[in-house]
Amino acid sequence: MKKGRISNNVIRRLPKYLRKLDELAEKGVDRISSGELGMQMGLTASQIRQDFSCFGEFGQQGYGYPVKSLRQEVASILGMNRGYATILVGVGNLGRALAENFDFRSNGFTLLAAFDINPSLIGKRVAGIPVYSMSDLKDFIKLCKVDIAVIAVSKDAARHVAAQLSDCGIRAICNFTNTDLGLRDSGVLVEDVHFSDSFYALSYYLTERLKREELEPAPSSLEK
Amino acid sequence: MKKGRISNNVIRRLPKYLRKLDELAEKGVDRISSGELGMQMGLTASQIRQDFSCFGEFGQQGYGYPVKSLRQEVASILGMNRGYATILVGVGNLGRALAENFDFRSNGFTLLAAFDINPSLIGKRVAGIPVYSMSDLKDFIKLCKVDIAVIAVSKDAARHVAAQLSDCGIRAICNFTNTDLGLRDSGVLVEDVHFSDSFYALSYYLTERLKREELEPAPSSLEK
Repeated sequence: MKKGRISNNVIRRLPKYLRKLDELAEKGVDRISSGELGMQMGLTASQIRQDFSCFGEFGQQGYGYPVKSLRQEVASILGMNRGYATILVGVGNLGRALAENFDFRSNGFTLLAAFDINPSLIGKRVAGIPVYSMSDLKDFIKLCKVDIAVIAVSKDAARHVAAQLSDCGIRAICNFTNTDLGLRDSGVLVEDVHFSDSFYALSYYLTERLKREELEPAPSSLEK
Repeated sequence: MKKGRISNNVIRRLPKYLRKLDELAEKGVDRISSGELGMQMGLTASQIRQDFSCFGEFGQQGYGYPVKSLRQEVASILGMNRGYATILVGVGNLGRALAENFDFRSNGFTLLAAFDINPSLIGKRVAGIPVYSMSDLKDFIKLCKVDIAVIAVSKDAARHVAAQLSDCGIRAICNFTNTDLGLRDSGVLVEDVHFSDSFYALSYYLTERLKREELEPAPSSLEK
């Protein structure tokens, strides 16, 4: 299967396709047309066709896309068949929420352990995962060949923890600290997650809607 | 100031500009060129110029962008000067993490109250915000003219809570339940936040990097 260079926008849409295809498979849908898929996802049929054409020749004109194999293909492009060894650093409210709400295993990640400095957490389990002391971090990463670290520590600790992880040879970090980790030239892949972005986007769309409503003249009493 | 139709991609970049402009203002930077701003943000100078041109004539050729007034303009476009009345529904680990980690007030939102069904939380405060019973939700929304609800309840409760909020006249929902709220035709603006998207994107980029490394031949022993 041909794989062209996939644009960042398409990559960001892949998880949405994955969720939708899972939902369709659950409902027993075998094939779906680009038009129907687009309607369900708020995209145009041509955008859908364009996105999937990045993966090669997929689906047959007039027959739609095969749900299960398209799902497999998207998952494979996302590396979900690789079972990346993952650790969580920081087991506060946010770290706990991440461990509890994201099903790492069924999404192709292997969440091995969590780390914290809080003595009351060390030796316990969170969402079934053992919590170790930060002083064990280095040895653990070396021993278990960890690929990805999810950081959910406080802002103050973020850069120090990130530097430690980089020194230990971590390849990729999912950063929930809401601050820059200062790893730009380290070679570590960093995905910054900012909750605030969603609030801002919502605020933008609400503001645009309110502005439109303010512009729309109130119905005149002469009109029915 | 001219305001053209702003594309979704630009809107999604606005929060990133906001954070960067805040950082620059903190460092005492008054003006910044598109080239320098681009370098700091991993964008091209022409992308920066194109993005800002959506807001009208901003910055002067050869003089760069004025940091403070550009920051104000971006904040205003995002509706951050509107002080939207906001509530949080669901005060588990995730809801608590949101209330504690996102500074609603300094970001232009007014977080009025939180709601939960857990009797041990009702009457308490979380991040300084009072927690009320879900049975008070309807009256509260009516009385306080709430604009935005942030939902962080369990998946099972998500649709029911969303329908309640829609019935109460909420205009916009920030959805952290990781499930579809079923409000497509309700007129309520919904921003779905999926943590998993960040994990997937990181997994994709890591996979691409590993594939590239696998393709690169190991250095031959004949080469120095």
